Amino acid sequence: MRTGIGKHIWSIAEGYIPGWSEPGAGHELVSHEALCILNTCETDAHVELMIFFSNRAPAGPYKVKVPAQRTEHLRLNDLRDPEVIPTGTDYSCVLTSDVPVVVQHTRLDSRSSSASLMSTIAYSE
Amino acid sequence: MRTGIGKHIWSIAEGYIPGWSEPGAGHELVSHEALCILNTCETDAHVELMIFFSNRAPAGPYKVKVPAQRTEHLRLNDLRDPEVIPTGTDYSCVLTSDVPVVVQHTRLDSRSSSASLMSTIAYSE
Amino acid sequence: MRTGIGKHIWSIAEGYIPGWSEPGAGHELVSHEALCILNTCETDAHVELMIFFSNRAPAGPYKVKVPAQRTEHLRLNDLRDPEVIPTGTDYSCVLTSDVPVVVQHTRLDSRSSSASLMSTIAYSE
Amino acid sequence: MRTGIGKHIWSIAEGYIPGWSEPGAGHELVSHEALCILNTCETDAHVELMIFFSNRAPAGPYKVKVPAQRTEHLRLNDLRDPEVIPTGTDYSCVLTSDVPVVVQHTRLDSRSSSASLMSTIAYSE
Repeated sequence: MRTGIGKHIWSIAEGYIPGWSEPGAGHELVSHEALCILNTCETDAHVELMIFFSNRAPAGPYKVKVPAQRTEHLRLNDLRDPEVIPTGTDYSCVLTSDVPVVVQHTRLDSRSSSASLMSTIAYSE
Repeated sequence: MRTGIGKHIWSIAEGYIPGWSEPGAGHELVSHEALCILNTCETDAHVELMIFFSNRAPAGPYKVKVPAQRTEHLRLNDLRDPEVIPTGTDYSCVLTSDVPVVVQHTRLDSRSSSASLMSTIAYSE
Repeated sequence: MRTGIGKHIWSIAEGYIPGWSEPGAGHELVSHEALCILNTCETDAHVELMIFFSNRAPAGPYKVKVPAQRTEHLRLNDLRDPEVIPTGTDYSCVLTSDVPVVVQHTRLDSRSSSASLMSTIAYSE
Repeated sequence: MRTGIGKHIWSIAEGYIPGWSEPGAGHELVSHEALCILNTCETDAHVELMIFFSNRAPAGPYKVKVPAQRTEHLRLNDLRDPEVIPTGTDYSCVLTSDVPVVVQHTRLDSRSSSASLMSTIAYSE
């Protein structure tokens, strides 16, 4: 099995957690954004996130551990420490990891009567 | 005609097969994920997939052959050997090929009343 | 103004023109796929497309000229010479250009009651 | 905190601002395209955009400043100087910055009864 795939630095320029959801949406279909982090290494990944805004200083670091050979689909709505990311607010994200990881970003937007999805590979270097 | 385009290793961090579909959805519109693999080489591609989860050891390898100068749009829902990928479960994927290929990942989610699509080029190295 | 941005070879692994559209959809909202090609050069781009299938030999080349400092959003549904790309059929695409271009692929799927979009940067080398 | 992430030149081949929106859509859900620009540097980014069309000379430069360690989610619909980008019109975009930035492009299309999203990392060099 191939290990150690990916990069140490990733960035997602587009971040926006919609401020509401279709009435009656269950947890799966609540508007949210996810950062999907794959760690193929044989050691745990210690990941730090910084969140950038348009009109205030960055927030973070948020610390996340992704165990060896596991994936973490992190809901950005759920981050609490050091602070919640406000909904309805433009932001961007930078992720750094002590071992190589692969990162993809997805939004599910259920403000309309049918949920809509978007996703892209993050920028890496 | 240009041949041999692509890379040997690809990864998709975001994997999630929705657990249900709109009632009455035919095969085309059933919620699914597809791995699209293009082999422009003049020889067949022998591809192996490993599936990573958040809370258990990886599954695989899944073996797929993509004939010379053909494309394979593989529905991840349809994988059976060595095991089915469960729906409603976070996962990630690593693909290795003995010849260069190009890989893109797409999800069709028809849990809502209208299907939604997302797609991205995979990460390669 | 910056010129000559991009690469000479691009590939889109995921191709599929949905076989039908929502009743009453006008030209803009008919299910389609587009290849968006930007030529920032000071000379015209002579582009060739090859289309790969899962169960037959490739089709093409399709020849397209993108004038200097212009963009072409090519509807793949509209290709006629040497042959039409069938709907409801898996395919992939390779694009070669004599000058550097930038390529992005988009699908609008209006089979459901609301149209859905997906898009990704193509693979380049 | 990591600074100076990204590239100086970015391009989005696919640009199209839908010509209408679902009746009653508020500002958030009006059909639009956004260019999300993250500047992690300790100095301001001076960004210039050129817009390319299919049947006329390019427009621009449009000038945008992204402050140090801030993100700008620029609605392309809102550009006024030197000219408005017409809706319902194919275009492409080239962005240049004096310091490294990360760029992602998103469209929200609310012509149908439910809004649809697409997004991709831009092409960089």
